Order: sequence, then C-alpha cells, then structure tokens
Amino acid sequence: MTQKSWTWIHRTDGIYVAQARLTPEMVGGAHVGYLIEKQRLAGGPSDGVDVVHVNNGLLSFDVLPTRGMGIWRAQVGELSVGWNSPVPGPVHPSLVPLAEPSGLGWLDGFDELLVRCGLESNGAPEFTEHGQLRYGLHGRIANRPAHQLQVHADGESGELVVAGIVDETRFHFCKLRMFSSISTRVGQPSLRIRDTVENLSGSPTDIQLLYHINFGPPLLGAGARVVAPVQALVPRTAAAAAELSQWDSYPPPRAGTLEQVYFFQLQSNHQQQTAVLLHDATAARGVSVHYNTRQLPCFTLWKNPTAEADGYVTGLEPATNYPNPRSFETRQGRVVPLGPGETATFDVELHIHVTADQVHRAQQQIAALQVAPPTIYDQPQPLWCADA
Amino acid sequence: MTQKSWTWIHRTDGIYVAQARLTPEMVGGAHVGYLIEKQRLAGGPSDGVDVVHVNNGLLSFDVLPTRGMGIWRAQVGELSVGWNSPVPGPVHPSLVPLAEPSGLGWLDGFDELLVRCGLESNGAPEFTEHGQLRYGLHGRIANRPAHQLQVHADGESGELVVAGIVDETRFHFCKLRMFSSISTRVGQPSLRIRDTVENLSGSPTDIQLLYHINFGPPLLGAGARVVAPVQALVPRTAAAAAELSQWDSYPPPRAGTLEQVYFFQLQSNHQQQTAVLLHDATAARGVSVHYNTRQLPCFTLWKNPTAEADGYVTGLEPATNYPNPRSFETRQGRVVPLGPGETATFDVELHIHVTADQVHRAQQQIAALQVAPPTIYDQPQPLWCADA
Amino acid sequence: MTQKSWTWIHRTDGIYVAQARLTPEMVGGAHVGYLIEKQRLAGGPSDGVDVVHVNNGLLSFDVLPTRGMGIWRAQVGELSVGWNSPVPGPVHPSLVPLAEPSGLGWLDGFDELLVRCGLESNGAPEFTEHGQLRYGLHGRIANRPAHQLQVHADGESGELVVAGIVDETRFHFCKLRMFSSISTRVGQPSLRIRDTVENLSGSPTDIQLLYHINFGPPLLGAGARVVAPVQALVPRTAAAAAELSQWDSYPPPRAGTLEQVYFFQLQSNHQQQTAVLLHDATAARGVSVHYNTRQLPCFTLWKNPTAEADGYVTGLEPATNYPNPRSFETRQGRVVPLGPGETATFDVELHIHVTADQVHRAQQQIAALQVAPPTIYDQPQPLWCADA
Repeated sequence: MTQKSWTWIHRTDGIYVAQARLTPEMVGGAHVGYLIEKQRLAGGPSDGVDVVHVNNGLLSFDVLPTRGMGIWRAQVGELSVGWNSPVPGPVHPSLVPLAEPSGLGWLDGFDELLVRCGLESNGAPEFTEHGQLRYGLHGRIANRPAHQLQVHADGESGELVVAGIVDETRFHFCKLRMFSSISTRVGQPSLRIRDTVENLSGSPTDIQLLYHINFGPPLLGAGARVVAPVQALVPRTAAAAAELSQWDSYPPPRAGTLEQVYFFQLQSNHQQQTAVLLHDATAARGVSVHYNTRQLPCFTLWKNPTAEADGYVTGLEPATNYPNPRSFETRQGRVVPLGPGETATFDVELHIHVTADQVHRAQQQIAALQVAPPTIYDQPQPLWCADA
Repeated sequence: MTQKSWTWIHRTDGIYVAQARLTPEMVGGAHVGYLIEKQRLAGGPSDGVDVVHVNNGLLSFDVLPTRGMGIWRAQVGELSVGWNSPVPGPVHPSLVPLAEPSGLGWLDGFDELLVRCGLESNGAPEFTEHGQLRYGLHGRIANRPAHQLQVHADGESGELVVAGIVDETRFHFCKLRMFSSISTRVGQPSLRIRDTVENLSGSPTDIQLLYHINFGPPLLGAGARVVAPVQALVPRTAAAAAELSQWDSYPPPRAGTLEQVYFFQLQSNHQQQTAVLLHDATAARGVSVHYNTRQLPCFTLWKNPTAEADGYVTGLEPATNYPNPRSFETRQGRVVPLGPGETATFDVELHIHVTADQVHRAQQQIAALQVAPPTIYDQPQPLWCADA
Repeated sequence: MTQKSWTWIHRTDGIYVAQARLTPEMVGGAHVGYLIEKQRLAGGPSDGVDVVHVNNGLLSFDVLPTRGMGIWRAQVGELSVGWNSPVPGPVHPSLVPLAEPSGLGWLDGFDELLVRCGLESNGAPEFTEHGQLRYGLHGRIANRPAHQLQVHADGESGELVVAGIVDETRFHFCKLRMFSSISTRVGQPSLRIRDTVENLSGSPTDIQLLYHINFGPPLLGAGARVVAPVQALVPRTAAAAAELSQWDSYPPPRAGTLEQVYFFQLQSNHQQQTAVLLHDATAARGVSVHYNTRQLPCFTLWKNPTAEADGYVTGLEPATNYPNPRSFETRQGRVVPLGPGETATFDVELHIHVTADQVHRAQQQIAALQVAPPTIYDQPQPLWCADA
C-alpha cells in the first residue's frame, strides 16, 4: 500500500500549508522522478495565490486552487502549453471585479490554460431590462478559492492527484459545491480532470459548466489546424459565417483581428467519448481534448488570432451549453438540472502530442469518430445563437 | 491591580499580531480557566481573516475584527449558538462584492451569529430612478476590517473584553467610526456588546444600525418559539400577514419555504430595557437578546424556515430602524442624527439559557415587561413597510 | 562603481521580499545617512500593502507599490507634506470598489500625497446612455499593484531610486504598462517622478494621466496661496466662477464648504518647463511642482477647504487632460495616442521649501515664467468644461 495523501488546505479543520513538497521518497513504491509542490505567490496582483506544481517526470502543470482549481499552464519538455495573456497573472480573485456593471470584469483575471466557466451561469453577460447586470461574463467559479485541497500519490500505479473543493454559494441563491480532481500518471503526457458538482440546496437548481481550454504559440500559429468529428457546425455571427471555409485553420497573428466563434455538436463513440485536436502547421506537435458528449453536449471553438501582445489564442471549449446569455440557454434547455443533493460529474482529458506520430494517431482516432458527414450551417441559427 | 491590556492591531502604530494567546497566568488575580486567543485564518475564502476566540470557562465565542467586529459563533458546553450558513465563511471582505449592481453581494459573506448592518444605511437595497445601486443590502460596516484591536482582562472582576475600531468612511461622503467593545465575565453564559459610533465629520449626518442576530439549530427547530413584550406588531408583507397567527413559532425546515418578516415596537421597563427570547420546542434551552429601546427603538423578526442546507435560521434584530430602503426610513425619521463629533452608543446583551429554569426565568422577565396588551396589525402598515 | 540594485518584487522570477533595508554600508561610496526600507503592512484595511520608505537624510517619503506606485506622504524635518484624509489608509486595492455602479468607489482609497489617475481614463465618472458605469472616477492605475519593484542607490552621485512596473490590462481592452521611477538625492529636499507608459498592444490606443498631488496642513491653511504662471484660467463651474477673485488663496477650514475647481493652461520656458507653488500664509514654507507642459499640457487646481476632519486639502494636478468625463476629453483631443509598442514619458518633480528664502526663490522662478498677461475667463468655457 503506497497510496499516500496530504491535506494542504482544510477550512473547518484549520489546515493551511503555504509551502510543501511531495517527493517519491515520501511515497515509496516503484515510481521516481516526480514531484508535487505547493507555493503561495506573494507580491503584485498574484499576492496570496496558491499554486500547486505537478511534475510527473514528463509533463508538468500548475493548478491554481485560489482560482477555482484552474490549470494555469503546462509543459512537456521544451513545449509550453497555454498562452500568453496580456494579464499579469495569475490574478488573485479579490482583484477581479466580477461585479463590474459592464459584466466584463472577469477578463481581468483571464490567463489560464484551463479555466472553468460556471457554475450558475457562463457565457456572455446578461442584463435586466433596466440594464442592470444579472449574469457576468463566464460566472464566478474561476474566482472562488478552494477551501479544501488534498494531494494524493500512488507509488504503485504512479497516479498523482490534486483534489480541491470549491463552493459557489450565495445565501438565498445558489448553493453549489464542486469537487475537482486533477490527475496524471508518472511519465504520461496527459492529465485528467474530474469535476463533480453537487447541489447542496434543499431545492432544485440548474447549472452550467464550460471548460475554456486555451492555447497560444507554439502550438497555435499560422497554418495550425483544429480537427474535430463534426456532426453540426454553426457560425455564431455573420462575421464568423463569412470565414466559415477557414473555420478549422488559423491565420498568423495580426493586430486588430476580431475573434470568431463556432458552435458544434460533435460525433462520439458508443460510449459517447469524443476528442478534438489542435496541431501546429507541420502536424508535428499538438494537443487533444477528450470528453464525454453526454456530460458535455456542446462544443465551442473560439478563434482570437490577434497580435501576440494582445493574446493570440484559441479556445477549445466543451460545455453543457453554448456561451450565450444564461436566459437564452435556459430557454433552449442547455442547463443541467440538479435536484436537492444531486450531483453531476464531468470528465475532461488533455493529451499532449510531441511527435508527428502522436499527432497522426490522434488524427486517426478523430477520423474514426466521423462516421457520418457533418452538417455545416452557413449562417447563425436561431436556436443556437442568441444574436441570430 | 490586575487589569491588563494588549494591543493586537494598531494601524498608525504599525502593530499587528497574527497569533496571540492571553491566559490567566499573564493576568494574575483570582480567576482561572479562561482564554483569549487570536488567529489569522489562511487559505480559501477566509484567507487573511482574523479571529479572536474568547473562552470564559463556560461560554466561548469568536469575534471577527476583519469583518467589522462581528461575532461568528458561540458555544456553551454542548450547545452551539449560531447557524449553518451555506456560505463557507468567515469570508474575507475583499471577496464580498458589496458593489454588485444587484445590491445583494453582501449575502456572499453572511454567516455570522451577530452581524451589524449599517452605518450609513441598512435594509433592502435601494436604487436610483435609473436603476443604479444607491445603497446595497445592509450596508458596509460588516465588511470593513478593524484597524485597531485590543483585549483587556481583569483578574479581579473576571471581565474579558475585545475592543476594536472600525471606520466606515468615504472622502466627500460618510466619515463614521465605530468603537466596539465585546465583553463577558469568567463563568457567565452571556456577552455584552457596546458600540459607540462617532461622526468624525465637521458636518452633521444620519446613521442607521441594525444587529442581525441569527440562530439556527439546535435552538431553532419545529416548535421553537420567540417570546417578546410586544407593543405593536406589523407583518411586513401580505404573505407575512397570512401567517400572522404563527408569528411566534417555527415550523420544521422545509425546502423552498419563503422568509417572513415582522416589525415590532417592544415594551420596556422604566429604564427602557427590553428583552426577546428564543427557546427550543421543550423550553429547555434558549437565548435572549437584551437591549435599550431608546437606543434601538425598532425590532425585526426574520423567519427563514427553509431546508437546513439552505440556512434554516431566524434573526432577532434590534435596530435604529426597520430594514426598509434607506430613503423610506429617512422619511419616517428612523435614522440617528449625529452632529459634528457627536456619538451614539448602543448596548446589546446575549444571554444563553441552558436549563428549563433559566428559560423560565427569561420568560417571566419578558412577561413582566408586557404591561399593556399588544397592538397587532393584520396587514402591512404604510408608515412601517416600504412595500405596503 | 558604487551603483547597486536590489529586486524586491519580480512576478515572473518569483521574487518577493516582504521586509528589507538598504543602508549606505551596503552601497559604499561617499554618501551616508540615508535609508531605503520596505515593509509589508498587516491588519485592517492596509493588510498586504507594501510601503517603501526612502530617507535621503533630509527628505523622507513613502512609496506604495501596491497602490500603483503612489506616494503616500513626505516629510522634511518637522514639516509633514501630504494631507489628513478621512480614509484610514493606505487601503489595499482589494477593498476599493472601483466597479461600484456610482463610479465613486475610488474615493475609498484616496489618501495619498500623490496619486496617479489613469491610464485608460481619469476624471469624473462616465455612464452609458442606460446609466451603466463606463469609466469610474480617476481610473484604475492607483489600485493596481506593481508586479516588479527594484531599488537603486548610487554611492557616488547619492541618487536613490524606487522603480516599479504596474500594468493596467484587460483582455480584449487596454494593455498598458507603466514603468515608474521615483528618485531623490541624498540631502536634497526634492523628489523626481519619471513614468513611462507603454502600449503593449498590437493596436493603437489613447491614454490619459493626471498627477493628483494633494496638500493639507500645515502647508495649507488660511491665507495660503498658490502661485502659477497662468496663461489661461477657466473656472469649472458657476460656483467656482463666483469665487474667481480668490482662486489663488485659501480660506480656513470650514465644515460644509464645497470644493471648487479651476482649469489652467500654464506658461513655460523654452524647454516647456513650468512650475506651480503652494506656500503657507507667511510664505515661510511651501512646495512646488515642476513639470513639462508638452508632456502634461493641462493643469487643474482643486480646492477643498472643508473641515479638517473631512479632508482640508488642495490638489495641484498636472495632466494630459482636464478631469472631465473621458468621452468629453476625447472629443477635445485631450488624450495621448500611443501606437503599438509606443511609449510616452512624464516627468514631475516636487520641491519642498522650508525657509522664506526658498519660497521666495520659487516665487521668482514662477514670476519669470509669466512673460505674458494671463487670460482669465470669468465663466466656464464649453471646450474646457463638460458641464458648461
């Protein structure tokens, strides 16, 4: 038995470990060469942000318990996975003005490889008929600090886990708890996220969750492509429709280029598993996102090929919904109902491909999912797009 | 002379003690078995919150200097006094969006046994004619950190005091300072709050203050009752009026039950002292709130018998006013005018009753205050209720 | 070579020094008797605020990296330079509600000798046609923590420098970086600010910057005067116009006195250098602000002679613009355009005068700049004043 656990944050037990280091010697077992390390950043806008650095010997990544268990960035060998946001992050949630009347304050903290949008809502801001902010852009969960944090290491299987609990609660309103577990195995170029959202309330509610998974250079660049088993594709706007033929490829960075968004239903296998790949121009390196379409029926591709200094980035976004204003999505039924005490679980995997062979295998895996021809809509569709 | 004082926070003197412990040995005198202890919480939404734990040998309670000298919770033997909020508190003020356009951001930090609402305003949010937030729910004072904190212990009398200074100031607007002193005596099941609010300004102003004192299980439960020397009772809404006959008793927790609010004038003795009691179904345990009706002429009873997970709770709320929007209360004169440099003092006591005898004595004390029959209004009254 | 540098904050290098002390022994060279010291404040609303104290042997001052490199206060011998704000500062930015719908939340943190207003905007709040906050009072830069901080000392020249980098960025919106350098020389009663603002974006933008430099007693008092080489003077409002004849003198503190604001163009020398002096009633002590009118073409005088408790203060405010709402100033062209990667530099000096001789020399220096008679407008002018 070489499974070991450490608790680094526990609100009700009064545990908080600012700095810690978990090494193979502390775990035992056959595996070596890995590390889990916790730091508390200090100074500047990051002051007070906890970072958990996981290095499995091949892949390393940083989890941000203070920012709702987001994943800041990842690295395999020389390959950086993530993007260069103009935001000097990670930004402490206390400096992110989610309540700004514009509904856009969330952007002040946006610099992660993976940021969850939810849980009460995600998507574009929504306002009351009097213009008062009702739902801010992409919700609150990414700016709620985890009040519980544990790490686990299994010396036999080589599994490494960072597990946190994040609440999104407001008296009289939502009472949601997310149990998030981010795991990897020693020597593997992949990580798995399993999030279970519980409705703590005695009354039913509806939730939304979108995984905003963001990639910039070097994976993203001129000629980079996205590969997906498309069942249906809808451009979000007329401008996106005008560039429909290039939906799966990327131009070079260019200042002032506007973002384009495409909405998808993806095909999946008999277990409802699907995958989307982003690879660079030479198909020599890439990253694929794997998830379950029963859990996450909607997929959004966000293309933002602006200047590098402004955030040249694309988002692969599996979700319970499309990132339209909450009420629009509610009307389309794109929310997850949760009865009192009920839970919903979401699984997402990231695989990083560092050779042409690996990219090729991912391409083949996705090709195999494409069993029927896609339906491509050449205009925004009214049931998909709030502005159509 | 066995009165000793320690300064744990002093902004201008540059004093800040993260952790401290005051024991009888440090004080001298006859009394033993008590403790005052300061902690600084770390991690999660409580990161940076100071907690002062007072244990007088019988009663213990936690004061939150960082949250405007609120009282988080109390305990006598096995009896927990307070409530289970869905909020994972105590929440640091920097994570409480008081400025949210909805005016409801205050709820994100609401989990205390005693939380002050004020000082510029309290009550329901108020908006300008253009829908812009003018006064947020329950004001700012509960989310302002004390910039001065002292503890005192008297080895002879056994008095233990936690004293803090909290400012609610905004250049060009309010300049209010609250001197708060929370005291108890060794071995007594009670605590006393004395708050003195000073208008630091050279110009006159008006203040409001409401003590939102909140109780959940085990004191609150099906069949629990509130006992008060009612002079006048007004249901706040038609829905509250419909349940008027049960105003003083509580149903079991039930998901989805809406809150009901009742406004009161209470009778008091010749020194204007009055008391309100909450006791459990068997009248075996209870808590009473004692205060002065000249200082706090208004009393509000808030009943929120929802599911336990959503916050099954009742609030006993002595105040300078009813928690209507500020402008409505101003028109009714329910504010406290303070000239330049003037002060107003407010005294509130909590007595915890852990035997049927103690509850019975509290019932008798309140019965003695009821010298005239109450006036019960069966509908909301226009001078009392903003929505009437 | 006796120039030495220390890095006390560096986000990407993971450097943060909570407390540090730089003394002549650590630098070498001829100069002695100076000190640069860093502290991290704890407790109350200042919790987490970094303060860098510089003492050059004659002049001391405190820089606030956490508040956008503002200067909290200064001192020469017995003379305090700064003001007594009703705000118990320095306030941590996380407690300053910039996003408050009123647009006035900035006031909760306002207590510095020198606070920068900008960079996207400064001036009065501006709202959309629906009443939604568009630009809050005086912008964001004063509430953004520096993510990089260095100190330099030159043992030969006696130059002491505090240098910080502060970003004002929002994804999809502004991407501005300010390199701020605040310097002094051993034994000199003056300090110099050099701020370089860079547009990090690949797209052009417009910035604004106003130096809100604030003085209260003892420099400010009944009979104190401001001396400026006026080219044009415009009262901002009819009320300011009514007191136009006393624009350059100050009444004693009086509760309830309303602020008055005057807008100026100042004359300058052939290098576009100008200066404004504030001296006390006897012209025995004073402070002058020196800057370049090409960099900062607008000057605002803010007079707030209210009760001392409410902030008896005057502001000398060189700026790129007048503090009108952003859109009004944009229409008048009073913004600084910055192309991709372009920078703009701003230089401001404060000289403190502690003898009548020094004040007299400053008066003469300003008199020499007044080569043409001033144009005094007796009413607000439409191109200057948003409310005219």
